Amino acid sequence: MADRPPDGSAPVIGIIAGNGALPLILADKLRADGHRVVAVGHEGETDPELAQRVDGFAWVKLGKFKTILKHLAKWRATEAVMCGGIAKSSIWRVRPDALALRMALSLRTLHDDVLLRAIAQILEDHGMTLRGPAEIAPSLLAPAGVLTRRQPTPEQWEDIHFGFEMASRLGEFDIGQGVVTRQRVVVAVEAVEGTDAMIARAGTLCRGDGALVKVCKPGQDLRLDLPTIGSRTIENLHAARIPALGIEAGRTLIMDLADTLALADRYGMTLVALERPASPAEEKPA
Amino acid sequence: MADRPPDGSAPVIGIIAGNGALPLILADKLRADGHRVVAVGHEGETDPELAQRVDGFAWVKLGKFKTILKHLAKWRATEAVMCGGIAKSSIWRVRPDALALRMALSLRTLHDDVLLRAIAQILEDHGMTLRGPAEIAPSLLAPAGVLTRRQPTPEQWEDIHFGFEMASRLGEFDIGQGVVTRQRVVVAVEAVEGTDAMIARAGTLCRGDGALVKVCKPGQDLRLDLPTIGSRTIENLHAARIPALGIEAGRTLIMDLADTLALADRYGMTLVALERPASPAEEKPA
Repeated sequence: MADRPPDGSAPVIGIIAGNGALPLILADKLRADGHRVVAVGHEGETDPELAQRVDGFAWVKLGKFKTILKHLAKWRATEAVMCGGIAKSSIWRVRPDALALRMALSLRTLHDDVLLRAIAQILEDHGMTLRGPAEIAPSLLAPAGVLTRRQPTPEQWEDIHFGFEMASRLGEFDIGQGVVTRQRVVVAVEAVEGTDAMIARAGTLCRGDGALVKVCKPGQDLRLDLPTIGSRTIENLHAARIPALGIEAGRTLIMDLADTLALADRYGMTLVALERPASPAEEKPA
Repeated sequence: MADRPPDGSAPVIGIIAGNGALPLILADKLRADGHRVVAVGHEGETDPELAQRVDGFAWVKLGKFKTILKHLAKWRATEAVMCGGIAKSSIWRVRPDALALRMALSLRTLHDDVLLRAIAQILEDHGMTLRGPAEIAPSLLAPAGVLTRRQPTPEQWEDIHFGFEMASRLGEFDIGQGVVTRQRVVVAVEAVEGTDAMIARAGTLCRGDGALVKVCKPGQDLRLDLPTIGSRTIENLHAARIPALGIEAGRTLIMDLADTLALADRYGMTLVALERPASPAEEKPA
């Protein structure tokens, strides 16, 4: 990477990077597809390795939106993609700049979905088109079906379907994306602690059984904050002895699909991507 | 206590005891009020001290309903009260007897509310009237208002009202009774792990702020599984540095009201019991 604007021959995609492996995977995919890629990383969240995988990189503190816009403009990015998420608990460490403050004051709630949406609006106002990771790298989306060699047992199908229903209905409260279910009991509900902490807790209560289910919120803007799984999710489930995982087909990012499925197969876990009928508001025939 | 039937001069109240201090407190109150009291304790759940505070006592294993009925009949109990709760995670350790099994097979879900309701029905079928702890010891119910010396700050009022709304709406899913909120974010949702574990988790995310709110499920049978707080709740909140607690007036049991409030006052916490307009199905003018 170098801290200089790429030459002006093609559109530049700017990654506004949160935590985890997704920004790195996305950067690799975009460059492999021939795009020019720059990134802004958030201090304390983003993997520093990302700097090595892009054509321009800068650090910002959480809430310094003006700085993000300045970097993206300098690099002449015309498209921006946010990915990797910011730990929800971090939003209380934010020292917002004037732009962030003006935005926050105009918001009804501090739910991160609302925050993210407002960020998207600011980008659009500054001439950048916000893209979703799924939109620019659709191969990251989960295909429908049983994705592992192991099929769910009848009990696991029941855990997954019940979890899918409960997580979908809880989605409207904008609390979190995940639940763990077992025998028609909701064992754990994800909120600010995040999926990893929920898995660990559920493991002590599930005794080698149950399913983790992650779904989108109803009506969720698919450019933002899609449920994401990967090898770490599988490792965590294995450690917690939770043998089944249900996700939403076409609306879940799987980081490193092949590696993730190979790991799940090695552990004898089952991974199912269910299709949900789209609500009219979310998808219409083109 | 002695393992003999009390003489037949007055109705005998049988406590079907779960865990925690509530069965002991209830037994003391009932005996202080002149009642004769017997109790069945659940192995691994009930405080053995209860045996010293009642006129008849026996241990049973979880799920041995026939044994419970046998003891209550032997003692000629005509009223039964269930209190103290069974750890939700214990329902998977149950080795049900024939009666329990027959009941479980007839149930649509394993939610503990449904289970408790079925137990109530069996008791009624065997000639015992099920009473609620609140009904036979109404002084245990939370009165309305700010119960501590410290009034909530405007931010704490907001956390409490938001938590009350969210917990009430989540109630219909029959997942748990509690949430922790802070600045219009649901920090934690209680499921099988229970209130104590949720408080501990929320404490690491709340940074000295926020409110725990516990409410009844909508339409909840008030004889069963009322939200309960006491000194332990206050100690846990203090350890987690969560300074505010919201409960539902008239539908929350407070164990040792005076001690609980004195402790909250000592820690500078605020405790508020809010009134919720009853739905027509739940309460009608007599």
